[in-house]
Amino acid sequence: MRIYDVIEKKKHGGELSKEEIFETVYRYTAGELPDYQMSALMMAIWFCGMSDRETFDLTEAMATSGETVDLSAFGDRTVDKHSTGGVGDKTTLIVAPIVAAAGGTVAKMSGRGLGHTGGTVDKLESFPGFRTSLSPAEFVNQVRTHGIAVIGQSADLAPADKKLYALRDVTATVDSIPLIASSIMSKKLAAGTRSIVLDVKCGNGAFMRTPKDAKQLAETMVRIGTAHGRRTAAVISNMDIPLGHAVGNTLEIMEAVEVLQGGGPKDLRTVCLTLASLIIGLSCQKSADEASVLAQEMLSSGKAYQKFCEWIAAQGGDASYAKDPTRFGMATCRLDIIAESDGYVAACNAATVGTAAMMLGAGRQTKEDVIDHRAGILLFKKPSDHVVRGETLATLYAERQELLSPAATLVKQALTYSPTPIVTPQTVYETVTADKI
Amino acid sequence: MRIYDVIEKKKHGGELSKEEIFETVYRYTAGELPDYQMSALMMAIWFCGMSDRETFDLTEAMATSGETVDLSAFGDRTVDKHSTGGVGDKTTLIVAPIVAAAGGTVAKMSGRGLGHTGGTVDKLESFPGFRTSLSPAEFVNQVRTHGIAVIGQSADLAPADKKLYALRDVTATVDSIPLIASSIMSKKLAAGTRSIVLDVKCGNGAFMRTPKDAKQLAETMVRIGTAHGRRTAAVISNMDIPLGHAVGNTLEIMEAVEVLQGGGPKDLRTVCLTLASLIIGLSCQKSADEASVLAQEMLSSGKAYQKFCEWIAAQGGDASYAKDPTRFGMATCRLDIIAESDGYVAACNAATVGTAAMMLGAGRQTKEDVIDHRAGILLFKKPSDHVVRGETLATLYAERQELLSPAATLVKQALTYSPTPIVTPQTVYETVTADKI
Repeated sequence: MRIYDVIEKKKHGGELSKEEIFETVYRYTAGELPDYQMSALMMAIWFCGMSDRETFDLTEAMATSGETVDLSAFGDRTVDKHSTGGVGDKTTLIVAPIVAAAGGTVAKMSGRGLGHTGGTVDKLESFPGFRTSLSPAEFVNQVRTHGIAVIGQSADLAPADKKLYALRDVTATVDSIPLIASSIMSKKLAAGTRSIVLDVKCGNGAFMRTPKDAKQLAETMVRIGTAHGRRTAAVISNMDIPLGHAVGNTLEIMEAVEVLQGGGPKDLRTVCLTLASLIIGLSCQKSADEASVLAQEMLSSGKAYQKFCEWIAAQGGDASYAKDPTRFGMATCRLDIIAESDGYVAACNAATVGTAAMMLGAGRQTKEDVIDHRAGILLFKKPSDHVVRGETLATLYAERQELLSPAATLVKQALTYSPTPIVTPQTVYETVTADKI
Repeated sequence: MRIYDVIEKKKHGGELSKEEIFETVYRYTAGELPDYQMSALMMAIWFCGMSDRETFDLTEAMATSGETVDLSAFGDRTVDKHSTGGVGDKTTLIVAPIVAAAGGTVAKMSGRGLGHTGGTVDKLESFPGFRTSLSPAEFVNQVRTHGIAVIGQSADLAPADKKLYALRDVTATVDSIPLIASSIMSKKLAAGTRSIVLDVKCGNGAFMRTPKDAKQLAETMVRIGTAHGRRTAAVISNMDIPLGHAVGNTLEIMEAVEVLQGGGPKDLRTVCLTLASLIIGLSCQKSADEASVLAQEMLSSGKAYQKFCEWIAAQGGDASYAKDPTRFGMATCRLDIIAESDGYVAACNAATVGTAAMMLGAGRQTKEDVIDHRAGILLFKKPSDHVVRGETLATLYAERQELLSPAATLVKQALTYSPTPIVTPQTVYETVTADKI
C-alpha cells in the first residue's frame, strides 16, 4: 500500500478499504508516514466524507493503536459518559454519582479542558487532595469498591487519535463529522465500558452549531458504538446559553452540589436527569420509565449526594468540602453587572460568556496555562427571566482585579434584552438511541 | 496573517487576497510554514480551484520568490517555448533554430526529464562537449552573438515552485489546472522573455488526457502570461501517439536533424512549423501568414539547419555530429518487432511506448538514474499506416541485452491493428491566442 494511492482514491470520492485505513493509521502512529501526507488525506476526507463502514474502521484502528482497558471483570453495567463540551457543563459531577447510586458502574477517563473552563478532571482537582491519576490497580479497586471512579485520560489510550487530532487542529480539518465522531469514539472504545452515553451540545457555545450537524454527529457516534458491540445512545442539548448559573471550576462544583442536594437550576437538573435516565436504562437494562423514576429517586433520597461524597473521599479528596462547599471560599476580586433597565433576558450567548470566563482565569488558552480554580462567572438571570432595573445580572470572580473589566464588557455583550416576554428555551432537544436510527 | 485562516478560507471556497497568497508563498519558501499546512492548502485548492486573479497572483509570487532574469537588453524579440511534455517530443531542437534563423531571440532555460526520455537538456548532452551550464555572462554573450542559447534551469529560478512542486508530487495535488498553470508560468516569467509559446500535449502520453483539460490549461497559461505583460500563445497537440518515429535521446537528435535537412516525419514537421510560425508571429510581430512562410523558408533554405550547427558549436558541442549524425552510432543491442499479419495500425499508445523507452534506459525513474543516450525506440509504422506481415514495425535499442525483451512486450501491447483503413490522426488540435479567449 502506498499512502499516495490512498490520498488519490479518497480525493476522487472512493471508499477506502479496511486494510488501507488500518495501515495508514498504524504507520502514521509509528512515525512512518509524514504529517504532510496525512494532512492532505484529512483535507480530502473533509471534502469527500467517509461512509459508515470507513468511519467504523477508522474508529477501530485508532482505538486499537495503543493500550485498551479491559473492564470485563465488572460485568455488564460499566458505563462511560462523554460530552462534546460546552459552557457551564458540570453534568458528569452530578450524573456519575446518580448512576453509581442506582447500581451502574462508572469507570470514566476524562480529558482536561482547553478553552473557557477546565474539563471534569480540572474541576475535581478543586478538592484538596483529589487524585486524578490512579494506577491501574487503584482504578480497578476503586471501581470495585465504590462503583465510581473518574481519572485523567492515559496518554497511552488511542495515541493515533492524539497525534491525528493535533495535526487536524493546525490544518483546518477538525470540523468533519466522521473525523470528530471517530476521534471521540476511539477513546470511548479503548476505555472499555459496556455502555456509552454521549451528550452532544448544540449551539453557539458548542462545536456543533446547528441541530442538523449535532444530530448527524450523534447518530454517527451511536452507529459506531453499536457496530462495535457497545450499548450506545446520545442526548442533543442546548448550548446557545450556558448550562446552569455557574461557569468556572469551583463555582461549578458548588452548583453541582446544589443539584445533588435537591436544588439547583432547572435546566441543569433536566439535562442531568435525562442523561442519568438514559445511562441507567442502558447499563442496568431498565425501561425508560423505570430508569427515569430511579434517577429521580437517587437525587431526592440523597443517595446520589452520599455517593458523591464517598467518591470524592475515595479518590483522596477532602470530603468536608463536598459536605460544605462554602469552604472553597470565593475568589479575591469580584464585580457585579447591574441591569440598566427593566425587561426580559432574550439571549445569553454561551460562546461569549465562555470567552469571558477564560479571560478571568477559569480556562486555558494554551496547554501550559494554569487555571485559577475559583475564577468564573455566576449568571443570575438567563433567557426568559424578568429583570428589574438595578438588579444584579451576574457576578464575575477573578484572582486579579485587572481581569474583571475586560471580561465584564464581554458578559454585557452576551446578554440581550426584550421589552416583551420570551419563551423559555428548550434544554434537551432530542434523544438518539440505536433503535431510532 | 495566520496560514490556518488561509486554509480555512480556501476550504470554504473563498478567494484568497494577493497579500495572503504572497505571504504564504514567501513564508513557505523561507521555511517558516510547515509542509503539513501547505499540503492541506494545496488539497483545498485541488477541490475549490482558484480564480484567474488568484492564479495570476500565485504565479507572480512564485516567479518572484528567487532570482529573475533580465533580458531587456535584447529588446522585443526574446522568446521562450515550453512543452508540457510528451513521448518523442524533440520540437525544441527544431523550432529554436528556425526561430533564431528568422530573427527571433531564443533565450531558453530548460528542465531535465523525469520519465520516458530525458528533457531537451539531456538530449543536447548527446553531443560530445556540449555545455548546458553557462555562466550568466556566457549565456548573455551567446544570445547576443548567435541569437540562440538553451541551458539547464537555474535552481535559483522560482525556488517556491520547486519546493511546492516536490510537496504536491507526494500529496496527490499535482493534477490541478491552476496549480499546473502557475507552476509552469512562474518559471517562464522568471526567465524573462518577452514572448512565451506553450505546447500543451493532450492524450494518453501527456499530463492532460482530454481536449477539455488541455484547452483549459492552455487558456489559463495564456491569460497568466498576458496579464503579466508577456505575449503568450499556446498550441494543443496530439499525444495519444508518440511524436515522430524516434523515442530516445540520440535517436531524437538524429530525427531532428532529418527535419532540419528538409525531411523527417510529417507529424513532427507539422507541429514544429505550427510552433515556429506562432513564435515568429509573436516575437517578430508578423502576421500569421507571413510568419508561416518565413518558418517554412528557414527550413527549406537550410538556414535553420545552419543555425542549429552554429548553436551546437557555440555551446561547446562537436558540430561534426550535427553535420553527420551517423557519428553517434547505434546502441550495442537491438531487437526488431515484426508484423504477424496484414492490416492497418489503429493505435500506438504513447504512454506505453514511453514506459518501454524508460525501461530500455532512455529515461529516468528517479532523479539519480543515469540515462543511456543511445537507448530508445524507432517506430516505423504509426496509426493509419498499412502493414504487411513480416515487415519491421519497430526497433528497440539498449546497451544491455536483457532490457530488450520486457520492453518489446510493452511496445507490442502499445500497437493495435484494424483490418480496414484508419483515418490519419490529427497532429495539431488548436491554437490558443490571447485575442481568442
